[in-house]
Amino acid sequence: MIFDSEIDKVVRGGTPLTETRPWKALEAHYLEIRDVHMRELFAADPDRFSRFSFELEDLLFDYSKNRIDETSIRLLIDLARASGVGEAARAMFFGEKINWTEGRAALHVALRNRTGTPIEVDGEDVMPGVNAVLQKMKGFSEAVRSGRWLGFTGRPITSVVNIGIGGSDLGPAMICEALTPYCDGPQVRFISNVDATDFVEKTRDLDPAETLFVVASKTFTTSETMTNAHTARRWLVDGLGDEAAVARHFVALSTNREAVEAFGIAPESIFEFWDWVGGRYSSWSAIGLTVALAVGFAGFEELLEGAHVVDRHFIEAPLEENIPVLMAMLGIWYRNFFGASTRAVLPYDQYLRRFPAYLQQADMESNGKSIDRDGCRVGYATGPVIWGEAGTNGQHAFYQLIHQGTELVPCDFIGVINSHNPIGDHQQKLVANCFAQTEALMQGRTADEVEADLRIQGLDHEEIQELLPHKVFAGNRPTNTILIDRVTPRSLGMLIALYEHEIFVQGVVWRVNSFDQWGVELGKVLAGNILGEEKRLLAGEEVDLDHHDSSTRALIERFVARRIQG
Amino acid sequence: MIFDSEIDKVVRGGTPLTETRPWKALEAHYLEIRDVHMRELFAADPDRFSRFSFELEDLLFDYSKNRIDETSIRLLIDLARASGVGEAARAMFFGEKINWTEGRAALHVALRNRTGTPIEVDGEDVMPGVNAVLQKMKGFSEAVRSGRWLGFTGRPITSVVNIGIGGSDLGPAMICEALTPYCDGPQVRFISNVDATDFVEKTRDLDPAETLFVVASKTFTTSETMTNAHTARRWLVDGLGDEAAVARHFVALSTNREAVEAFGIAPESIFEFWDWVGGRYSSWSAIGLTVALAVGFAGFEELLEGAHVVDRHFIEAPLEENIPVLMAMLGIWYRNFFGASTRAVLPYDQYLRRFPAYLQQADMESNGKSIDRDGCRVGYATGPVIWGEAGTNGQHAFYQLIHQGTELVPCDFIGVINSHNPIGDHQQKLVANCFAQTEALMQGRTADEVEADLRIQGLDHEEIQELLPHKVFAGNRPTNTILIDRVTPRSLGMLIALYEHEIFVQGVVWRVNSFDQWGVELGKVLAGNILGEEKRLLAGEEVDLDHHDSSTRALIERFVARRIQG
Repeated sequence: MIFDSEIDKVVRGGTPLTETRPWKALEAHYLEIRDVHMRELFAADPDRFSRFSFELEDLLFDYSKNRIDETSIRLLIDLARASGVGEAARAMFFGEKINWTEGRAALHVALRNRTGTPIEVDGEDVMPGVNAVLQKMKGFSEAVRSGRWLGFTGRPITSVVNIGIGGSDLGPAMICEALTPYCDGPQVRFISNVDATDFVEKTRDLDPAETLFVVASKTFTTSETMTNAHTARRWLVDGLGDEAAVARHFVALSTNREAVEAFGIAPESIFEFWDWVGGRYSSWSAIGLTVALAVGFAGFEELLEGAHVVDRHFIEAPLEENIPVLMAMLGIWYRNFFGASTRAVLPYDQYLRRFPAYLQQADMESNGKSIDRDGCRVGYATGPVIWGEAGTNGQHAFYQLIHQGTELVPCDFIGVINSHNPIGDHQQKLVANCFAQTEALMQGRTADEVEADLRIQGLDHEEIQELLPHKVFAGNRPTNTILIDRVTPRSLGMLIALYEHEIFVQGVVWRVNSFDQWGVELGKVLAGNILGEEKRLLAGEEVDLDHHDSSTRALIERFVARRIQG
Repeated sequence: MIFDSEIDKVVRGGTPLTETRPWKALEAHYLEIRDVHMRELFAADPDRFSRFSFELEDLLFDYSKNRIDETSIRLLIDLARASGVGEAARAMFFGEKINWTEGRAALHVALRNRTGTPIEVDGEDVMPGVNAVLQKMKGFSEAVRSGRWLGFTGRPITSVVNIGIGGSDLGPAMICEALTPYCDGPQVRFISNVDATDFVEKTRDLDPAETLFVVASKTFTTSETMTNAHTARRWLVDGLGDEAAVARHFVALSTNREAVEAFGIAPESIFEFWDWVGGRYSSWSAIGLTVALAVGFAGFEELLEGAHVVDRHFIEAPLEENIPVLMAMLGIWYRNFFGASTRAVLPYDQYLRRFPAYLQQADMESNGKSIDRDGCRVGYATGPVIWGEAGTNGQHAFYQLIHQGTELVPCDFIGVINSHNPIGDHQQKLVANCFAQTEALMQGRTADEVEADLRIQGLDHEEIQELLPHKVFAGNRPTNTILIDRVTPRSLGMLIALYEHEIFVQGVVWRVNSFDQWGVELGKVLAGNILGEEKRLLAGEEVDLDHHDSSTRALIERFVARRIQG
């Protein structure tokens, strides 16, 4: 019923997850390893790094600084296997409707299927459609970038403004910033927030005659996006003095042709995608058009190539050598056995600054669920809170808590060997900090080490006793290090795809649907209600607010009373 | 010994926190309220909003959508009182050395002491010094803004670049962005990351002849900041062709006069502060110079005024009517009794976009500790992970998890009634979303409600049973709403000070020193070691890396081997 593959038999209606043999084995093993310090593990095994690291092209995944031994990995992989991770991955790649609550496939892997092998949904190969849209993106992005596509007044496009939110914003915006050194086309900006400030600040210095708006909304009804799109439309028409200009300055990434055409966008300026492309997995689809405009289509294809490399690795490598599977199972290890509620993602590259924000949606919207495949409430923790900022900035902000707080925060360090901006020894310092933090988090600093140090500094006994406990670092804080040679479209594609599949694997083990997002619906409905009430109140109508709780009612009343109408 | 006030008697060497009477009472009360739904609490008490909300000037603090009743608040305030919160606050305001591990006062309240009443540290009134620096900031910012201060080639300053990290960056950067509508001076930018990309991207389009660098480092030795400062110095000298230009294009915010002068900065261009100004509490000091340059000194004073309003409220209001105390104790309620590991801060204003990043340092560096005043490891959770992004963007990213995940995430919604950019109905929509989310998180949506809805949509019994559990929202998710009329320097000053005092109160209850940050030291030392090793390896020297664990060693070797020397 959920999806017609082996996985269904394995999971549905079976033993509760926490009662399965592999889970029980992990619980027992956790008690053994809980008090083992990674210092000891490294000391006992000179080969620990090579034992617990893998390479994929120029990417190194070092997971040796985790609270694991070989038994841990064997048991975690047992759990993955018993959860049907391999079967589930094949179901995804074969176009099965693994998004069962919406009756859809989740086929982002088809969008970067560079071999062109057929992938069928409902008996139809999706690849010709995928490739046709890619060709259309190629043609359009080249026309704009070369100056062949002209604005309404005959001038070429120098600025592209992407209007979208969630998956239509976070992925493309993160990718464009990450690939800044490759951006040789029109400048690109992203407007997402319904707050008019976002629109005003991003368009303040733009010339409508040279600006192209890319409106990204699957349904073309997303409230924030359509509000911004209509404001952009007015801005453009006011600037150029003609409604007819819209067709030269707007394109749409959408599946709703009718609404797009009603907006004034030409049918040939619609870039389509399909119901099997989830918003947070859509950067590889037409939603990536802004990326192609910024870095060129060849760069966009390199991004797809990188993701495809990881797709092949994910579907082909044995589970115990499978990087996304290992990432996923380590996440589960900390989430479900060590009780970690969060996970920090710490890119040591300024261009990857927004990677954590992108990943928040990718991960938290996918696995922030509590209903399993049987429709039952889960009896275990699912998706953690994902957070982070660029290193070294984070070191001067929140690393204090990671080192010495009461909360265990497993961290992913994303290091980059070569900078696009090699100046002096900046990069050596940056990388030294990245490595040193993983070392410090693992090693810690014992009371004896601190005491010796304070003695050298000349402190007396009483001073040492007072200060010592504050300067001790327990260490034993787990980290992964993902190290790439350089941020390129290809390595970025790999990085994103690794996390996508990691999220997928966790969803399979946790038995949740990683591809729906019912939890965003209620707020939308209530916001629509409140907006209507605000408008009627501001128009002087009487509105009965008694169906609201007293807080929401008071907030609405205060807004209406204290609003200075602009 | 720690600090000479009543609080010392109350806390030090006394009963362990979790054994105190108020803590025990809260534990018992938690069991009573754990399963109570806020829906019931609102239904039972028509006055719930007015009972659980306070106003301070134009700021509304609505804490009625929390899992509390009057007993909860009474018991939480009992705990605050027994923890000596009032005494500790007075100790802070009176200049006592409450940062006991460093033997320092923590006197950010003196920086915004607009009444000028004397505040003594070691028997000396600090206010004349504070006011003298403020006057100097006034004079300098007015000289630059008016064009009286000229660059080396005789041109006025049009761009200010702040070079700092942590507290010398996050506060001023957040404030400048928040106050964008008030920025009528030179454009300001912030460089913090040692990644050269940060420097390159921020200076790409700047003209050295019109650029002023503000180097913010208390010690003038912070590695990241000094690396960027030296790169800036070279960029400037290369651009203007004369070492002597440095004195017209660099100012320093520092206590280390000698190092500053050695850099080439004129003694009169040093803006000093004091050891009782902690980095993360320093925006109110000379560290705020960039803010004053951006918005003008009058705006900077308004920021101080706003903070001072909150300072007075904090020190004067009874604990049960004290907004920062209530914020703090609600945080403790969820952290220690409901087991919440994180707290989301969600500003519904694009200009406040970086407020959560600022708050990460303010909170997590302050209370991410695990050693109490007696030098003992705490037996309870301290500072949570703080995270968040601007609404409505977060709604399309991670709200799924907040609504339907397995983790309880208490949220602060920061709403703003009036936009600086009133366009169409953007603001009404933004505010409607803010209120609707708090309503949705509180109310949830029951199975009966979902079922009725699905029936209307025409789904059959089996379809309804399949989908229903996924569309249920448990609700009962706690939120605070802080609602201000508009983002102004004054309201922003209030907002920041509210959180500062909240953090302080939590530190007092948790018995940690909120003003040190020993947890950042170890990584610095190890980074220095690794940097030295990298450099020697890159110079072709043999270096013994055996003192590192095999992971750190392999990472260093890979960096050296795969680095393309630029």
